[in-house]
Amino acid sequence: MRDTTTLQPGLSVDCVIFGFHENELKVLMLKMKKMGKWALPGGFVDRDKDVDTEANNVLKRRTGIENIFLHQFHLFGKVDRNRPNHASNLLDNGLIDSKFKSWFEQRFITVGYYALVEYANVQAPKPDPISEKCEWLPITELPELILDHRQIIVKAHETLKKELNHQPIGLNLLPEKFTMPELQALYETVLEKKLDRRNFRRKMLSYEILIQTNERRLGGAHKAPTLYQFDKLKYKQAIDGGLKSGW
Amino acid sequence: MRDTTTLQPGLSVDCVIFGFHENELKVLMLKMKKMGKWALPGGFVDRDKDVDTEANNVLKRRTGIENIFLHQFHLFGKVDRNRPNHASNLLDNGLIDSKFKSWFEQRFITVGYYALVEYANVQAPKPDPISEKCEWLPITELPELILDHRQIIVKAHETLKKELNHQPIGLNLLPEKFTMPELQALYETVLEKKLDRRNFRRKMLSYEILIQTNERRLGGAHKAPTLYQFDKLKYKQAIDGGLKSGW
Repeated sequence: MRDTTTLQPGLSVDCVIFGFHENELKVLMLKMKKMGKWALPGGFVDRDKDVDTEANNVLKRRTGIENIFLHQFHLFGKVDRNRPNHASNLLDNGLIDSKFKSWFEQRFITVGYYALVEYANVQAPKPDPISEKCEWLPITELPELILDHRQIIVKAHETLKKELNHQPIGLNLLPEKFTMPELQALYETVLEKKLDRRNFRRKMLSYEILIQTNERRLGGAHKAPTLYQFDKLKYKQAIDGGLKSGW
Repeated sequence: MRDTTTLQPGLSVDCVIFGFHENELKVLMLKMKKMGKWALPGGFVDRDKDVDTEANNVLKRRTGIENIFLHQFHLFGKVDRNRPNHASNLLDNGLIDSKFKSWFEQRFITVGYYALVEYANVQAPKPDPISEKCEWLPITELPELILDHRQIIVKAHETLKKELNHQPIGLNLLPEKFTMPELQALYETVLEKKLDRRNFRRKMLSYEILIQTNERRLGGAHKAPTLYQFDKLKYKQAIDGGLKSGW
């Protein structure tokens, strides 16, 4: 634990790292030693650092993971989000020194960040000294979490679903060449709902971010499906300026 | 100025109230006495209040305006957003008491909120004791602003433009019955660009939030255009669950 006099009082950051792998959506969580509960990778903000910069530093310190672009998505500012017994629990389980108890008892607001990554491409996460493990857990089966961390995950997921209406996803989450059903499966996983095959195809092509290759995915029982790849320039333009479907 | 020991340290809120009136987009600003610079209505957060609640309280205290739904949109957390001379300027111009100088000198992060209103329907804003006026200024001609307030307005406007891709606007901004060109003018004003008339009509109708009435707007030189109104139930469903065009 750092010297708290160098930290911005009452402020923390929490990172919701969504992992996409084999058509499952998971969240990177730390299991706190002895307490049994799980937590998002989070931490405090140095007085001399930008909040956005500190989100990346916190993620690195707690999980070893670097170079992920974190999207700031919400400030959680309810008075009652820090429970009175949270500091006592940390102390009783030997996770903090008694001199830090009052620091953990103050009112905290927290800034939520999220990222969506192909988790097989991420370096193996390493838990920090107060955590017994750092693992990817399916969002549909989350265990007991500390504070309002479940609510933070729900809000991050809602934000990600909305973002799909004006931003493309898929680059770095799918193989370089992929079929339309593979792309659809990614959307269905994030949106947690089935989509109509024809509408999906029509809409996705209307975004004009895909290149149809002359290759086909071989090996299935059905007619071999066409492979697509992203037009990286147009993909980037869509990230910056919105999808063609937008205003 | 309130007793600062009751306030959450290093935290403020700022409100970007966009007004739509006669096809112009304006922002509600306060002109600070003596300093000459303009500022967004902003203020501090009581330790015992939710941040979202305090945003409404701040707006009321500084402008007299109540009952506006504020959307939280971004946390501004750069170290250098509070300039060292800001507290001195406030003090030199007699806007704060010297006992509050150190409060204003600390590092502040600020939470941005925005709303879009028909400003003719808003009660006349009243400036607070440290402001000489409270006025609607066109976003295209903003004067010199304090701190990073210009950047906060730009980010709020960008957010509003993105929101148009998954949320409807228009209810409470247009008369109860309106023509398609009037609705298009609202979108063009917010988006700051011209839209194709046919595409606009096709897309807007595809959202299925409009009811075509049997009435026409009379009095123009051209063929009298059809009047529409929002289907309030479907409009509300689109606010909650996204537009039909979405995933």
